[in-house]
Amino acid sequence: MINFADYLVKKIEEMDNPTVVGLDPKLEYIPDSIKDYSEQLFPEEPTKATAKAIWLFNKEIIDQVCDIVPAIKLQFAYYEMYGVDALKTMLLTARYAQRRGMIVIGDCKRNDIGSTATAYAEAIIGTTDILLGETMEMSGFDACTVNAYLGVDGVQPFIDVAKRDGKGIFCLVRTSNPSAGDFQDLELKDGRKLYEAVAEKVNEWGKDVIGEEGFSSVGAVVGATWPEQAVALRKLMPNAFILVPGYGAQGAGADEAVAGFTAEGKGAIVNSSRAIMTAWKKREDLEPEEFGVAARQEALDMKEKLNAALKNRKYV
Amino acid sequence: MINFADYLVKKIEEMDNPTVVGLDPKLEYIPDSIKDYSEQLFPEEPTKATAKAIWLFNKEIIDQVCDIVPAIKLQFAYYEMYGVDALKTMLLTARYAQRRGMIVIGDCKRNDIGSTATAYAEAIIGTTDILLGETMEMSGFDACTVNAYLGVDGVQPFIDVAKRDGKGIFCLVRTSNPSAGDFQDLELKDGRKLYEAVAEKVNEWGKDVIGEEGFSSVGAVVGATWPEQAVALRKLMPNAFILVPGYGAQGAGADEAVAGFTAEGKGAIVNSSRAIMTAWKKREDLEPEEFGVAARQEALDMKEKLNAALKNRKYV
Repeated sequence: MINFADYLVKKIEEMDNPTVVGLDPKLEYIPDSIKDYSEQLFPEEPTKATAKAIWLFNKEIIDQVCDIVPAIKLQFAYYEMYGVDALKTMLLTARYAQRRGMIVIGDCKRNDIGSTATAYAEAIIGTTDILLGETMEMSGFDACTVNAYLGVDGVQPFIDVAKRDGKGIFCLVRTSNPSAGDFQDLELKDGRKLYEAVAEKVNEWGKDVIGEEGFSSVGAVVGATWPEQAVALRKLMPNAFILVPGYGAQGAGADEAVAGFTAEGKGAIVNSSRAIMTAWKKREDLEPEEFGVAARQEALDMKEKLNAALKNRKYV
Repeated sequence: MINFADYLVKKIEEMDNPTVVGLDPKLEYIPDSIKDYSEQLFPEEPTKATAKAIWLFNKEIIDQVCDIVPAIKLQFAYYEMYGVDALKTMLLTARYAQRRGMIVIGDCKRNDIGSTATAYAEAIIGTTDILLGETMEMSGFDACTVNAYLGVDGVQPFIDVAKRDGKGIFCLVRTSNPSAGDFQDLELKDGRKLYEAVAEKVNEWGKDVIGEEGFSSVGAVVGATWPEQAVALRKLMPNAFILVPGYGAQGAGADEAVAGFTAEGKGAIVNSSRAIMTAWKKREDLEPEEFGVAARQEALDMKEKLNAALKNRKYV
């Protein structure tokens, strides 16, 4: 059984690109012609038309970036928002990206306790079919995001499934949003911040699933918007693989985004969703239907910026 | 627009029963004959057969308890675990329970930021169809559970939708599981525990949606397994409507479960899932097919115990 973190390190090195493309399909990101075509296919069924439009959009982006980007991240909220047909598109997108060699992260921020957490873990990253008892992907994600507010009861079931099936998780430690500090920055009696206490637990929980490359399949989410904290968190979680949201649309640049990488420039992957999905809107030289080409060029641009920032670290 | 908390208070008073029945459909809770029948209907499609068995089970329980219990709570994890067909059953169950006059709470513990949190809120408790722009339930839940680790950015979108559409939310404050204290009990520099800091925020966030009965549609989850803390939390959140998990199967009795109610015995609702769903397994006098009758009697027994505990409070 391959260790998830090793798999991720290998894919990133192969492509020399620590980027994950987020596919968070708001309808306004999709060119009209794609939506019109889908509506013609399902004139009486708007939910099916929407699911189809999202699929056509996702597939083209995957086709365009799968040879230069190691992973995609699917944000569950947008698929759930558009209904059950869109959820099927989410699962189809996950499978298709894997067939094209990409790692697929489910951004679901799930959290619950005991057997309920096990249910989520089996549903999202498990490879044992609950109904048939056979080895078979349910949702087929390689990893997912987890909210640890409920403590180890809520996380261990995910770790158990991840360990059994060679998958990974990313625990929310320091999120990228403006109000992240409402609770995460609260100072504890012992002088630590809450997010540091969470980070120490994440490092501890991950000790059992460290791969040959030195990183654990129990990773962490640390926003690019807080680079000084990312530097400190890398020290608290020397083995954690870090998923970095907040690059681009949320205001952080490449220098900030790589703050949590190790001194060797490893152990983290930076997400970009909106900038890549909507790259076509800024391109007067391209037709809207060339959104995939625009996405690819935006992804190449991001790769270049991240690698330049890694050569010349601003935050250490 | 009716205030959700008022609606909940009214239903509880009508039935003189502060109970919510949790429908967390593990397959082992469902009698074999129901599962066999469903498999005969869909011999080649195990996911459809499972979804059908869950539906038949849920419908019978709802039919049996809808005149004595004000609300049901659907745990998303179990439906997600059994796939897209089971998710359709979840939505069908929600609609059916509402048609039978019940309040429906989605236990999804969702959390994300900004527009993503809005997407979840619209999907789960919103009544505006995203695709058609018309007023139309998507998932149709009256309320849902929310994890607040990301701060107000992650909660405000839920509050906005709840306010607009007369819905409610329950923020995780003190969960019922053994490791809840891993983070929730951490002592802050100012002497408060983390869960108390969360409780104070919940009370503050809810000020804008307090109904005529004095309770807010921004509620809290406080486990029955921590009665002393529930007493203290009621004081910190005088207006919060409290959803109480942990009764029965997780070890707390009626005395513990009512610890967070107000002095007047109001402002909270106690969940029971497993004990009600599997009541038939303890009944040698009933056939397994009479699981609905067994559930009803268990629910009546719980009502009696809670009301007795409310008359004679152990934790105040």
